[in-house]
Amino acid sequence: MNNFQFVNPTKIIFGKGEIKRLSKEIPAGKKVLIIYGGGTIKKTGLLDEIKEELKDYTTGEFGGIEPNPTYETLMQGVDFIRKENYDYLLAVGGGSVIDGTKFIAAAVLHTQDDPWKLVTDNKAVKNALPFGVVLTLPASGSEMNGGAVITRKSILTKLPFFGPALFPKFSILDPVYTYTLPDKQIVNGVIDSFIHIMEQYMTFPVNAKVQDRFSEGLLSTLIEEGPEALKDKENYDVRANIMWAATMAYNGLIASGVPQDWSTHMIGHEITALYGLDHAETLAIIFPSMLEVMKEDKREKLLQYGRRVWNIDSSLPEDKSVSLTIEKTRGFFRTMGIKTGFKEHSMGAEVIDKIIASLESHGMKKLGEKGTVTPDVVRKVLEMSL
Amino acid sequence: MNNFQFVNPTKIIFGKGEIKRLSKEIPAGKKVLIIYGGGTIKKTGLLDEIKEELKDYTTGEFGGIEPNPTYETLMQGVDFIRKENYDYLLAVGGGSVIDGTKFIAAAVLHTQDDPWKLVTDNKAVKNALPFGVVLTLPASGSEMNGGAVITRKSILTKLPFFGPALFPKFSILDPVYTYTLPDKQIVNGVIDSFIHIMEQYMTFPVNAKVQDRFSEGLLSTLIEEGPEALKDKENYDVRANIMWAATMAYNGLIASGVPQDWSTHMIGHEITALYGLDHAETLAIIFPSMLEVMKEDKREKLLQYGRRVWNIDSSLPEDKSVSLTIEKTRGFFRTMGIKTGFKEHSMGAEVIDKIIASLESHGMKKLGEKGTVTPDVVRKVLEMSL
Repeated sequence: MNNFQFVNPTKIIFGKGEIKRLSKEIPAGKKVLIIYGGGTIKKTGLLDEIKEELKDYTTGEFGGIEPNPTYETLMQGVDFIRKENYDYLLAVGGGSVIDGTKFIAAAVLHTQDDPWKLVTDNKAVKNALPFGVVLTLPASGSEMNGGAVITRKSILTKLPFFGPALFPKFSILDPVYTYTLPDKQIVNGVIDSFIHIMEQYMTFPVNAKVQDRFSEGLLSTLIEEGPEALKDKENYDVRANIMWAATMAYNGLIASGVPQDWSTHMIGHEITALYGLDHAETLAIIFPSMLEVMKEDKREKLLQYGRRVWNIDSSLPEDKSVSLTIEKTRGFFRTMGIKTGFKEHSMGAEVIDKIIASLESHGMKKLGEKGTVTPDVVRKVLEMSL
Repeated sequence: MNNFQFVNPTKIIFGKGEIKRLSKEIPAGKKVLIIYGGGTIKKTGLLDEIKEELKDYTTGEFGGIEPNPTYETLMQGVDFIRKENYDYLLAVGGGSVIDGTKFIAAAVLHTQDDPWKLVTDNKAVKNALPFGVVLTLPASGSEMNGGAVITRKSILTKLPFFGPALFPKFSILDPVYTYTLPDKQIVNGVIDSFIHIMEQYMTFPVNAKVQDRFSEGLLSTLIEEGPEALKDKENYDVRANIMWAATMAYNGLIASGVPQDWSTHMIGHEITALYGLDHAETLAIIFPSMLEVMKEDKREKLLQYGRRVWNIDSSLPEDKSVSLTIEKTRGFFRTMGIKTGFKEHSMGAEVIDKIIASLESHGMKKLGEKGTVTPDVVRKVLEMSL
């Protein structure tokens, strides 16, 4: 096991009806800005419910955070907060709204130079307005971590940033809010969570038994519950298991003391920035090919994953086990109804050079747990993903 | 899944040599009292190492915290701190030292009435001196939770207390410190951790898939690594896996959203208070009999545990599976070399009435996840444990 530090101060409030605790979590006297996305929460009544819970506070609203939240939109929020002096933020939505809120929370206090530097400086963000979360879409894990990803539209760039000030003070996770999600968002959420786990697990073994088994437990849960969520849209336990798995998938715990990969994510970010595919759609295309191309480096973990998660017969020849394991993984993505090749998105070989150039321009020339995913390797992965 | 709240602010610093970070974690200018047990840390050199790391602070020492730390000893520490104005505590040891430090940290600030009320009032402790931990014995989980258990010798009483102020600010977990532990302490630690997990897992199913799989992963890790730790005393990974499993076993995570039992612990506390057996020794005696007596209530989880953790053939008749599962569990305890019956401790049926009277005097008449472990049931368990 590698040395590590782990700390996660976010308070999780989980379960049906827990929105009733909202006003207990926000200090009295705060001026609260409610931040959301396309406005679904108006239709579902959640916004009204939140306003009712916060009737003793001065509140305001800032809607319109887009999927893959943009610097351009978020800076409007920053200006609004500075003008109106809000001092507490409440993100109501999924990863995009939470990530956007994290950027806004930090940028409001970053007055000395360009807030875009929060993203490009690669330094831990230590100051931000306090904020809470009401989660409506399990996927990103942003509700219980100190990271975020935002996009600057004008330069087609999507980049991550992080820091101790970016942990939510609290997150309310009510699985019932996911009943009204379109299937596509459930699928994206399950795939996104699945790959989050894989980026922290599918590397090389360091004999970290707890972390490995936690990862395997989360993967098995998503494999079991993902298809169920599409069949039965109001099964509370299924939605609860997916929601908790998605949160645990990316809160620092399974990453503790193990190598991490993240190359699929970095390539995926470029694809989203260049072509607008959903984050999960990019992952579902890239990840199976990445496993195929990197299968020698990842052999031991692939065998372990195949045996423990897919019950692959351990008496099979190793090569056969590995190929069957990759097949099962791609098969799970297809069972969930997500596309696993560029062609299905009407994209062809012309995207390859652009994606690689974009990665290189962001300094990402040595990706993966061993830094061996060079532009040449990415090319192979992309060719295999057509 | 049941509704739940989860928050755990303790910072974990894990791995070989991490003691070097000690001075980064304690605010400059603090007057630090180093609290420890029987003085092994003097022999191993750890105390000197800690003093060297803290050479820029004013420090003092308070040693002699006993296993099952007593109110009587701890109050001496409280008097010493009040007289010398220490404002930061550093617990160096295992669960007893950490639990003792928690009591001291809270009692120092509890000046208005008898500090024993911190234990008997059953109210969350909200004020305590800040404290950190250097862990030398993986077992209790106290290094990453807000609970503790102390004993008042004069009235033969051992009781738990808890609260948000009882989370360590940080805990340094270096598996190398466990190399010098006597076998008995390793055994006790593995058994204690194992039963901690079981008290949160072996109840009735609420379809909490993540929590169940996390628990099963921790149990499997202890079953694999426990015997290895006795064979090879300087295997870093084995010690690291046990240490991390013990911490994760009791930090609130696997308890989130599921029913909990804790009847074995409550009975065990009485036995320790009355007869001085080690905490883990009491658990190893009681737990297998508790499973036997409560096997109908726990049937579904026993079958799941048997299948997933002990690879019991799922085509066996259920009754056979259950008895085999209990047998495997007791067998694991015996493989670790811990006694599983009162007779092996030269204790007989005369203890039964006293233990039950003691439980009753502490108001524990309805134990277990359903409150069905009455004094009559405890009697059966104790009779079966002779």
